[in-house]
Amino acid sequence: MTAEFDVIGFDADDTLWHSEDGFRVNEERFVELITPYAPAGVAVKAALTATEQKNLAAFGYGVKSFGLSMVEAAVTISGGRVPSTVVAEMVEMVRTQLEEPVRLLDHVPEVLAEVAATNRLILITKGDLIHQTHKVTTSGLAHHFDHVEIVLEKDAETYAGILSRLGIEPSRFCMVGNSVRSDILPVLALGGSAVHVPYPILWDLEQADEHDEHFAELASLTDLPAWLNSR
Amino acid sequence: MTAEFDVIGFDADDTLWHSEDGFRVNEERFVELITPYAPAGVAVKAALTATEQKNLAAFGYGVKSFGLSMVEAAVTISGGRVPSTVVAEMVEMVRTQLEEPVRLLDHVPEVLAEVAATNRLILITKGDLIHQTHKVTTSGLAHHFDHVEIVLEKDAETYAGILSRLGIEPSRFCMVGNSVRSDILPVLALGGSAVHVPYPILWDLEQADEHDEHFAELASLTDLPAWLNSR
Repeated sequence: MTAEFDVIGFDADDTLWHSEDGFRVNEERFVELITPYAPAGVAVKAALTATEQKNLAAFGYGVKSFGLSMVEAAVTISGGRVPSTVVAEMVEMVRTQLEEPVRLLDHVPEVLAEVAATNRLILITKGDLIHQTHKVTTSGLAHHFDHVEIVLEKDAETYAGILSRLGIEPSRFCMVGNSVRSDILPVLALGGSAVHVPYPILWDLEQADEHDEHFAELASLTDLPAWLNSR
Repeated sequence: MTAEFDVIGFDADDTLWHSEDGFRVNEERFVELITPYAPAGVAVKAALTATEQKNLAAFGYGVKSFGLSMVEAAVTISGGRVPSTVVAEMVEMVRTQLEEPVRLLDHVPEVLAEVAATNRLILITKGDLIHQTHKVTTSGLAHHFDHVEIVLEKDAETYAGILSRLGIEPSRFCMVGNSVRSDILPVLALGGSAVHVPYPILWDLEQADEHDEHFAELASLTDLPAWLNSR
């Protein structure tokens, strides 16, 4: 298909399947549950995000970390006035999110089948080991991927390690994903290529810093085969 | 050193460094915190273990899963009577356990240095991606290992995948670890070898089923170089 790339890397959450919308629903539920116990004027959602940010280095990404941050923030915001039964509901929210069936984005199976016919595909995703593994194995998409990497952080060092282990020349690699911070900039920094396919919502902590890099942006993953063909 | 093996695999938690004792301390703290709110006669520790077992398939192994199970069990066991401030202490227990410095078992650096002088070493550990990565990178042991795998479950399929990807013949592979269930039996099932080095305490959910397999058991990792030399 494309003469320029040997391997196409795909992000998973919000690139192949919906993810952030599930967090958003749980955030809204958190605000509903905690607001009655919060002092007037406290920005409940902002306080939750601040707790997540504080915990990121120790807890890492993913649903379980989010759940623990919800428990912590619930008690902190309410000054301990929230009943523990309300806190227990947050563990249920985690369980529901972990067990929820994968909801693929439109046309993903067809796009992957088309690109996989002529390119080697790898999947590079960050987050909870068990949740990401569960999503990959139940997505019906695993057979398209030569290799799946679940990583702690998607920075240039991580990408360099993966490409080196798999014997992929960065200049022959193109990454496709919804996060400029995690999928695009670190790959460009290594001399690779990257295609940004935005998802309608982006987690606050996934916002990219200002940057001068230029890269392709596609409105939908369905535009990817044509973009690759044009290279 | 040994003519029989090309690669020696090491488990990490309770093989290279202490782990289970930290969970045990937190379990005891949980019992202390919750007993005042539990109905008389309820076996608080057993109820926590039952919650962990119920959640294992959805939550997976590791400290964050343990924390969420503590929160759930606290509310269930107390019938919602436990104050949420007590529940919040469980999130703090998780944070402390995740950030605690690695406590190596005796003589581990010397043993690894000796074995690494003549064999290729790999590390295979299960649990939380961020916690295991943190422990590996801060242990001062990472340089001994050619490869580190953090996996979801240590079953025969997982070991087969790792050995195949790394081009290791199972008959030339020997795994060293404290868990008969996770480190020994699945490797023997593949035609590999395994050495059991028990740790003084073993998690209830890590107990092996009855088995007929025979394998070497060493009292201490310090006996490993001599055992390998004798092969």
